[in-house]
Amino acid sequence: MTLDINLKGEYEIMKMSKLFVQTLREFPSDAEVISHKMLVRAGYIRKLTSGVYNYLPLMWRVLKKIENIVREEMDAAGAQELLMPFVQPKELWEESGRWEVYGKELMRLRDRHNREMCLGPTHEEIITSIARDGLKSYKQLPVNLYQIQSKFRDEVRPRFGLLRGREFIMKDAYSFDMTQEGLEKEYANMAQAYTKIFKRCGLNTKMVQSDSGAIGGSVSHEFMVITDTDAGENDVFYCDNCDYAANSNHAVSKLPGVNEGVKLTGDWQTAQIVDTPNTHSIEELCDFLKIPSTLIVKTLVYIIDKKSVLALIRGDKQVEETKLMNAFGGNDIRIATAGEIEEMMGVNGFEAEKGFIGPKGLKEYNGYEITVIADETVKEMKNFVIGINQKDKHGVGYNWQGGKYLGLVGETTSLTSQGGKYLGLVSETTSLTSQEGRCNGAESDTKGLIELPETVTDIRLVEAGEFCPQCGKPLKVTRGIEVGNIFQLGTKYSKPMNAVYLDQNGKTQPYIMGCYGIGISRTAAAAVEAHYDEHGIKWPLAIAPYHAIVIPVSTKDEEQMRVANDIYLTLKKHGAEVVIDDRDERAGVKFKDADLIGFPYQIIVGKSIAEGNVEFKIRETDEKTAMKPEEAAEVVITAINNL
Amino acid sequence: MTLDINLKGEYEIMKMSKLFVQTLREFPSDAEVISHKMLVRAGYIRKLTSGVYNYLPLMWRVLKKIENIVREEMDAAGAQELLMPFVQPKELWEESGRWEVYGKELMRLRDRHNREMCLGPTHEEIITSIARDGLKSYKQLPVNLYQIQSKFRDEVRPRFGLLRGREFIMKDAYSFDMTQEGLEKEYANMAQAYTKIFKRCGLNTKMVQSDSGAIGGSVSHEFMVITDTDAGENDVFYCDNCDYAANSNHAVSKLPGVNEGVKLTGDWQTAQIVDTPNTHSIEELCDFLKIPSTLIVKTLVYIIDKKSVLALIRGDKQVEETKLMNAFGGNDIRIATAGEIEEMMGVNGFEAEKGFIGPKGLKEYNGYEITVIADETVKEMKNFVIGINQKDKHGVGYNWQGGKYLGLVGETTSLTSQGGKYLGLVSETTSLTSQEGRCNGAESDTKGLIELPETVTDIRLVEAGEFCPQCGKPLKVTRGIEVGNIFQLGTKYSKPMNAVYLDQNGKTQPYIMGCYGIGISRTAAAAVEAHYDEHGIKWPLAIAPYHAIVIPVSTKDEEQMRVANDIYLTLKKHGAEVVIDDRDERAGVKFKDADLIGFPYQIIVGKSIAEGNVEFKIRETDEKTAMKPEEAAEVVITAINNL
Repeated sequence: MTLDINLKGEYEIMKMSKLFVQTLREFPSDAEVISHKMLVRAGYIRKLTSGVYNYLPLMWRVLKKIENIVREEMDAAGAQELLMPFVQPKELWEESGRWEVYGKELMRLRDRHNREMCLGPTHEEIITSIARDGLKSYKQLPVNLYQIQSKFRDEVRPRFGLLRGREFIMKDAYSFDMTQEGLEKEYANMAQAYTKIFKRCGLNTKMVQSDSGAIGGSVSHEFMVITDTDAGENDVFYCDNCDYAANSNHAVSKLPGVNEGVKLTGDWQTAQIVDTPNTHSIEELCDFLKIPSTLIVKTLVYIIDKKSVLALIRGDKQVEETKLMNAFGGNDIRIATAGEIEEMMGVNGFEAEKGFIGPKGLKEYNGYEITVIADETVKEMKNFVIGINQKDKHGVGYNWQGGKYLGLVGETTSLTSQGGKYLGLVSETTSLTSQEGRCNGAESDTKGLIELPETVTDIRLVEAGEFCPQCGKPLKVTRGIEVGNIFQLGTKYSKPMNAVYLDQNGKTQPYIMGCYGIGISRTAAAAVEAHYDEHGIKWPLAIAPYHAIVIPVSTKDEEQMRVANDIYLTLKKHGAEVVIDDRDERAGVKFKDADLIGFPYQIIVGKSIAEGNVEFKIRETDEKTAMKPEEAAEVVITAINNL
Repeated sequence: MTLDINLKGEYEIMKMSKLFVQTLREFPSDAEVISHKMLVRAGYIRKLTSGVYNYLPLMWRVLKKIENIVREEMDAAGAQELLMPFVQPKELWEESGRWEVYGKELMRLRDRHNREMCLGPTHEEIITSIARDGLKSYKQLPVNLYQIQSKFRDEVRPRFGLLRGREFIMKDAYSFDMTQEGLEKEYANMAQAYTKIFKRCGLNTKMVQSDSGAIGGSVSHEFMVITDTDAGENDVFYCDNCDYAANSNHAVSKLPGVNEGVKLTGDWQTAQIVDTPNTHSIEELCDFLKIPSTLIVKTLVYIIDKKSVLALIRGDKQVEETKLMNAFGGNDIRIATAGEIEEMMGVNGFEAEKGFIGPKGLKEYNGYEITVIADETVKEMKNFVIGINQKDKHGVGYNWQGGKYLGLVGETTSLTSQGGKYLGLVSETTSLTSQEGRCNGAESDTKGLIELPETVTDIRLVEAGEFCPQCGKPLKVTRGIEVGNIFQLGTKYSKPMNAVYLDQNGKTQPYIMGCYGIGISRTAAAAVEAHYDEHGIKWPLAIAPYHAIVIPVSTKDEEQMRVANDIYLTLKKHGAEVVIDDRDERAGVKFKDADLIGFPYQIIVGKSIAEGNVEFKIRETDEKTAMKPEEAAEVVITAINNL
């Protein structure tokens, strides 16, 4: 028996046999994260080329629902929608100064007349040009303009499916205010709208402080979906005791004191150069010298925007690369290779090599301009161990020269070693040199003074257990997927682009701007990361492609088909989005597809219809209940009416 | 007095003072057509760069409305929406063979890994790859998939604002069938949907036969908005007596007979070469020889895809370049320059020059491969005049050699001249040579035979007054703006791309495809071309950015403001999209802006409120009526409920 209802037009496609979806038996081999695996296998997306996906009909339904939620909340918050082009002219990017600095993620192209253009990775330049053309008087301010649109960023290594693609859908909003207070008010307004949006999408998000990155500006926050899956690309540090939460690229913390009350004794009281053969890592150096890493000034070599930067940090801490890049004022950072280090510093008497690099005398060397940036952790260090650009040697008992640290040589901080095991508070002192005989051949350096770098700032990666900067309680760490971000841009774009309005006194003033993004396709993927099990997706009702599926177990059973049709039509009549699985397939195949695709409600019409019952399954819990067909329909209708 | 209602969120932007719109006092200087002028001046669009526009909030509202109408009708017709990427990989375009042939309109680019890509001008390749991946069984067919998306075509000369831009919004649908009959059924289904869509948008369209162009396929139709403005880029030939209608690039006609019953007498009976000095145009040649242009075989030189093509056509008719290009099988056509003609044919004894070119002996000449294509009009010509590649000379009394035309020399068709005025049916005969003395120096060519080109086909531009190919009545011509098109592609993409399904017998078969486009942004512009007056736009209600505007004449008048607020809130409550002009501006400024922007209904609250009346203006007719506020609201509410 086939469906006895005469379906037409859009109703036709609610038949599973006609729905454009092909589920796969296996997860795709190139997928690393859950959302990528699930969305491909369940027939939502197909890769067109690296980082570029086709959104098939099921996916598009999800995306449209997210778009509509975003649109409703943005409109309700007073923003006005427009649409800017995908292709942008170079000239505006030159005005803002970003044409040069944006890097390779900016996809550049030339038209047939050889004019340079780019594919929009974001639209600050365009919106600023629109504003300066259309917002000429204070009477028109404040304004918030937004669009929902595809963007392109030529990621070096696209991955994770929709989470880090090259072409993706984004909502981007831009606000124009007269004062910082106005901006802050709109910033709070947007934060509130975002909280509503993600809640309506069924996502539990945390608003965290973050780095402003290539967008710029002073204050920014990200909205993170907290997840334990591999897709969480960001570490988020947060405090249970207060509301502090920050992306690792922006998190700060208070540190416990170290080495306090420990006295430096023996040869360590005197600055000297000691032999430290083959100590290429902090760990090896600690082992060899029998000291804690807290007494070592670690030196790392980075390449930022093709320039060399030495980063100094206390030996037990890690450098946070975004912080370092920002401290330098750069746009692109990576650790230097061994070859680069050798090329830069391994000549003219220096025997620079990983493990032995230090800042001493290295301002401009071997034709390379070298910038030294120190983390705040090194500022208070005394009688420390540091690389001195000589292979297999380190300076010990060294101190900072200059500033308020001058003259602190030989003071209270001590270094103690006992049988190769460091006990921070043991007062017994042993001279490494005398005890271990490892300082043979060390030159005497009675001064042991190194200039403290000009730039001493926070470039440290926070670790869980360090103390909350707000309330002092230990911080926790979790992983998050960024789905939205908000930025206080200030005049970063309006000033260089001369985007001004006339104020009440007839004076031109640059707009105080903010910008606010939501990754639409990213939000869909994050929803999968947050809602799935081994059988498939568990869409939140508000963004599911369909609310329900009706599954007649046997399409050859007239009674089952009759009841299934009845339920289907009842649901349709009440505005539910429902699919009927009319395929002549085994029940197991239909159940598996229903779970994989992730229909929130599944109404299974099988043999128990003889007792007047259908099986009602809630995908979120996989709970199954026998109930009357009309009861099942009622549950679905009530749920969608409550959306 | 300010608005005493506490507007919040989306309501806030319904205040004219807060709406992001800036009308201009003048039309933009670079705009050539009405829609471009109006949309810029009324604050709907702003140019970002050549052929690329920002859609400001008013425009975006119009576009969304058109999109929604399109979406509703496509869904009702059973199509399923998806979204394909803007950026496409070269590989798929190589599979279809279009990477090479598409020409410079295809915007090509390279990513950071030097992979070649393009911006989608259309999506046949992508959808075909999606289908072959997802439609593997006959059970899944037929399917129609569509998207609404920005496209990019790097037009050599973008113009006319949204009508011929480079980045534009399009709905493109693609159908997959098993049989030609299935395709034809879906083609008719789409034609019906299109008719509904444009009608709902308030547009009067004609469905006309057209050339398939770069999309390919055998049968195609365009939906044209008939207009008398400069924006009508296409000539449409149509018949009032039957349903025939065709784009000039595809129109055919029956011609009246010429030269019948006229006898060729005197020297013209014998093929000969005559002196025809300085006769560079058909007109000059006719004047000189005292003959009608119907006796001349006109030869034109074109460059098609960098190759030389001679087109032969009867002297009184024009070549239709698209038809000629298709006859050659090319993608790009232009007339050759005088320099090119000289370079090709002006050596080795030939003195080729505009006006004296002919096909004789010109298959491969001077290193150029030359193709000769003749229009059907020349086929039946006898004893004609033709260029023979000698400066200031023509062949007269020439005939076709080969095929059934061989041996027709000296037959019935006559050439008559009388005192410089040709009278087609006059039987008096005069020899040009003897009478005018112009044939001095002419060589005798007793054969006068020229090979009829292999390709004889229709390359003629139809003219009004020629006869309908269906019913024989005279054709009329009008101008149209193409807003939609439908194509029967057949297996043009599925075969080369090996896009197949398994039929009932387990055999692979290529899909029979169709494709169906609607220019969303173009439809908006065409609506302006069809609905405007000197004061501004007259939007059809269904696609107007707002349904109505309420204009309190004086915002300082408490009673006016109170009534305006009441009407505004009443309209809002009933779902109308309404703006209140709260600006402290002169009434004239407000009225002008309302007309320019094109609010379909304008409710003006002025002094007549003392008598309990407002002025109700219908923009379409500019008719104004005094009525009670509640009556005015009622008219608007009724109208939108009838949409």
